[in-house]
Amino acid sequence: MYFYKNEFIPKTDIHLSPDDRGYYFGDGIYEVFRVYQGQLYEQDAHMQRLQRTAEEVRLTLPFTSRKIGQILTELVEKNKLVEGTVYVQITRGEAPRAHPFPPQTEPVMLAYCTEVPRPVATIHNGIKAITFADIRWLRCDLKTLNLLPNVMAKQAALDHGVQEVVLHREGTVTECSASNLMIIKDGVLYTHPANHLILHGITRAVVLRLARALEMPVKEEAFTTEQLAGADEAFITGTTVEITPILEVDGHSIGTGIPGPLTRRLQDEFVRTFA
Amino acid sequence: MYFYKNEFIPKTDIHLSPDDRGYYFGDGIYEVFRVYQGQLYEQDAHMQRLQRTAEEVRLTLPFTSRKIGQILTELVEKNKLVEGTVYVQITRGEAPRAHPFPPQTEPVMLAYCTEVPRPVATIHNGIKAITFADIRWLRCDLKTLNLLPNVMAKQAALDHGVQEVVLHREGTVTECSASNLMIIKDGVLYTHPANHLILHGITRAVVLRLARALEMPVKEEAFTTEQLAGADEAFITGTTVEITPILEVDGHSIGTGIPGPLTRRLQDEFVRTFA
Repeated sequence: MYFYKNEFIPKTDIHLSPDDRGYYFGDGIYEVFRVYQGQLYEQDAHMQRLQRTAEEVRLTLPFTSRKIGQILTELVEKNKLVEGTVYVQITRGEAPRAHPFPPQTEPVMLAYCTEVPRPVATIHNGIKAITFADIRWLRCDLKTLNLLPNVMAKQAALDHGVQEVVLHREGTVTECSASNLMIIKDGVLYTHPANHLILHGITRAVVLRLARALEMPVKEEAFTTEQLAGADEAFITGTTVEITPILEVDGHSIGTGIPGPLTRRLQDEFVRTFA
Repeated sequence: MYFYKNEFIPKTDIHLSPDDRGYYFGDGIYEVFRVYQGQLYEQDAHMQRLQRTAEEVRLTLPFTSRKIGQILTELVEKNKLVEGTVYVQITRGEAPRAHPFPPQTEPVMLAYCTEVPRPVATIHNGIKAITFADIRWLRCDLKTLNLLPNVMAKQAALDHGVQEVVLHREGTVTECSASNLMIIKDGVLYTHPANHLILHGITRAVVLRLARALEMPVKEEAFTTEQLAGADEAFITGTTVEITPILEVDGHSIGTGIPGPLTRRLQDEFVRTFA
């Protein structure tokens, strides 16, 4: 069961219009919520981010945050989802193709659930990555449907036989294709500041909170690809990847080449936030 | 009558899938052809650009260039279009949402005609513009469906009571929201080189050809917003706007504040390419 426009509806009954601005401009926004034990995880944080993105791209949400939260909760219940994700996107509406905002158009909301088990194998074993030029626009803090650069980057990783890309702007690391990146050096946790160059990840915020609670020094400072190569530990954070260790970048091991002790510590703490 | 996937079909019968990657990633490409007197204008150039974009984003076109040309020509005929545009877009196909290219997915082609008269009033009278930061990604040469920054820029112009934005990267002018920009200073025509920072406009290429035929010196060199302000003449080029004079930028007149003689000369020559 999906939610489309104003109703819960089977997927096969959804007929998108070729006039939907999401289809020809990517003119829309989205969120992916994690569901653990049938509950939306960090619901308020996701809703706040959705609302912020909507404001920044000047898109009026079709319902209040509260109502959207209710719809997504109902979706989880109707689909009897226990562990997975809820995807929701809202486009600016349907109108003949023209760049300016169309007058008096209703935004179009689409939402659905997917069963997604926790990626326990990669959380435990870690993954490999390559560095890749970050050529995205300068509002990477906005969660919009303009995701072609992320798609191309992710595919480049797979073509190189690894699972992820580390994006960088002239050597300064920003984040990954759909996750944030953190490194640990001499006990200090570093990650790119939450500005216009990275997505302000919900899991990123949770992990920083956990690190501070553990009295681990945290520096929200950009680091270079060289600093990444010389880090003791590295991991990505994201709604579905949670905290996944990065063991190798461009063929070079990070630290000892196995998931580090502080990464493990944060993983343990993270599980406690929903278990 | 539209064309969708493999057939000519009424618009109301088109039902896009929520699994279409164009809808949730903007994972697709497009072209807009001008139709004059029932004929596709500069058909080969548009087809070559479509093919180049497809290769760069690694999307396999669903038909040969020749076949796509035939489909678009048939569309013009079926719709008895005399003056207007043909829009065609191709997405990577339908698959559950995941960043990597889906295996064995058919690309989805959508095409339709629109009656669009030549914008003779603005071609004659010119338009006004404001400068606006160019925050787009670093492959603006690719005609993809990731157009939210262009939408936001165009809307900013309208909000300021003008018709267009002049995009610039730290003072260096690139192009406009959906057209290229040229200036004339001391008889020399300047425009941004056709690199990764601008769309390689078909009309841009036609105008450069016409200028050279008129023995007008042409320099494909980037210029600054200050140089634009100090130009003798300025105009935008594009498939629908053709050659439209820019008379004012940020409230300051360009040259004498009326369309200049070399702009007029190029406009006259341009009309001869299709009349």
